[in-house]
Amino acid sequence: MVRRLGPIAGVVAIGISATAMATQEPQINEHSKVHVMACVELETDYRARVGVGVGQLPQSPGVPISHAVAELRRCVQDLGFVGCNLNPDPSGGHWTSAPLTDRAWYPFYEAMVELDVPAMVHVSAVTNPNFHATGSHYLNADTTAFMQFLQSDLFQDLPGLRFVIPHGGGAVPYHWGRYRGLAQDMKRPPLKEHLLNNVFFDTCVYHQPGIDLLLKVIPADNILFASEMVGAVRGIDPETGNYYDDTKRYVEGLKLSPEDRNKVFEGNARRVYSRLKNKIPASR
Amino acid sequence: MVRRLGPIAGVVAIGISATAMATQEPQINEHSKVHVMACVELETDYRARVGVGVGQLPQSPGVPISHAVAELRRCVQDLGFVGCNLNPDPSGGHWTSAPLTDRAWYPFYEAMVELDVPAMVHVSAVTNPNFHATGSHYLNADTTAFMQFLQSDLFQDLPGLRFVIPHGGGAVPYHWGRYRGLAQDMKRPPLKEHLLNNVFFDTCVYHQPGIDLLLKVIPADNILFASEMVGAVRGIDPETGNYYDDTKRYVEGLKLSPEDRNKVFEGNARRVYSRLKNKIPASR
Repeated sequence: MVRRLGPIAGVVAIGISATAMATQEPQINEHSKVHVMACVELETDYRARVGVGVGQLPQSPGVPISHAVAELRRCVQDLGFVGCNLNPDPSGGHWTSAPLTDRAWYPFYEAMVELDVPAMVHVSAVTNPNFHATGSHYLNADTTAFMQFLQSDLFQDLPGLRFVIPHGGGAVPYHWGRYRGLAQDMKRPPLKEHLLNNVFFDTCVYHQPGIDLLLKVIPADNILFASEMVGAVRGIDPETGNYYDDTKRYVEGLKLSPEDRNKVFEGNARRVYSRLKNKIPASR
Repeated sequence: MVRRLGPIAGVVAIGISATAMATQEPQINEHSKVHVMACVELETDYRARVGVGVGQLPQSPGVPISHAVAELRRCVQDLGFVGCNLNPDPSGGHWTSAPLTDRAWYPFYEAMVELDVPAMVHVSAVTNPNFHATGSHYLNADTTAFMQFLQSDLFQDLPGLRFVIPHGGGAVPYHWGRYRGLAQDMKRPPLKEHLLNNVFFDTCVYHQPGIDLLLKVIPADNILFASEMVGAVRGIDPETGNYYDDTKRYVEGLKLSPEDRNKVFEGNARRVYSRLKNKIPASR
């Protein structure tokens, strides 16, 4: 993974989901996802490479999310983790829970705000044969969560709440005009004001045109560099000769301003995962 | 609608879903969707404007799709319709049916091939509170259907089968690298060979960067112009001063070659909806 990021880049903050293995629930037994949530460019070498965790939660269908609060506290306070993965569909593709904006989720959100940690909204294994985990369920969940946020007053209720939507936001940036128009028709504030203080997207989009679109329509303040190891795709793209999931190449291909580049590769991760400041000194 | 398409364009083929109103199932009582499936540029005037229908089907959860075959035959043979809308999730967001690639759907597909008509894969009303109809359910279904096709041998079994995926393919073009990589990891043929003789995308994407991406990654042979009336978004985009859903402006904004422009606005629609040749003479 580090090799893929090139000889200069040091992966300083690697988020490793702490998978709870004690249950047979399929959404808990997903492979431990290794997710780079911040890649800090070092001017020296790899010496500061440090793994920093984000917690996976023991969510199950029909079990109130308040049961996960204790695990969140353990992950953050005892293990020093800086965030968590929140599954919007613990049923694994049957979508039997209440939307993320339902009051039933609020006890968990209040703990997130108190602990000052963000959640990545990410589903897990899927048991509904209509969906392929990485080919549709993941992307659908990203799109679904964003639209739930758009319809709600969640961030008026809890302004300190922060979510990262993975896979470049699912379908959202590609349909950004649709979402701007839906918000307008629903008499919601413009998306920047309504959602973009609280919702962020990662860069796990596996081709240059997708990353180009992401950075074109979503402000650089809202994009966090991410790559994957044992992610959706493992092969090498014959069109480029590089790994499909070598997302750093696509972001580099954008020719961002130094300021935006720093936001995407480091600054935004530090802002969203604010507890990183206790873990990793700034690179500059 | 015609006004929005400009004074030169004539809307020649307008697909009007024939909504079966006889049942109380929510997916049947959806608004009749008015979908432009082909906009043919006329060199003269509006005189050739003709409405041509596509049939909506009486699908219900638990009812075999073979029950819809009679309605397809009636729509095509009695009413002169040139295609149909096929709902991949008659449960309305609970996803309780088998995937579109399951053998249970084959009797309907065999009728489609026999009648030489395509289906637009489009869900209808949603009753699962996790999903907003036009903000997530529609796009999720597009993405889901494409991935089902990718995993299957459906088009080896039925090479004459043709599907149009609306809303610019949901999340698919934005994640085209992901899908190319998934096909490769799954030892499937390249997507062009595996799916693009049978799967087509429309242009219902409501901003210029989205349409730019669509035409950049998907071959022009696979894109059919579409716009909507009473679609997902009704307002005017303050960034452009034009209707969000005025998709013709975005396609025009691409500066396509005359050949590709003709494919997108007319040629592909004639190829996919092949029965149009009995309805509307070619514009050139």
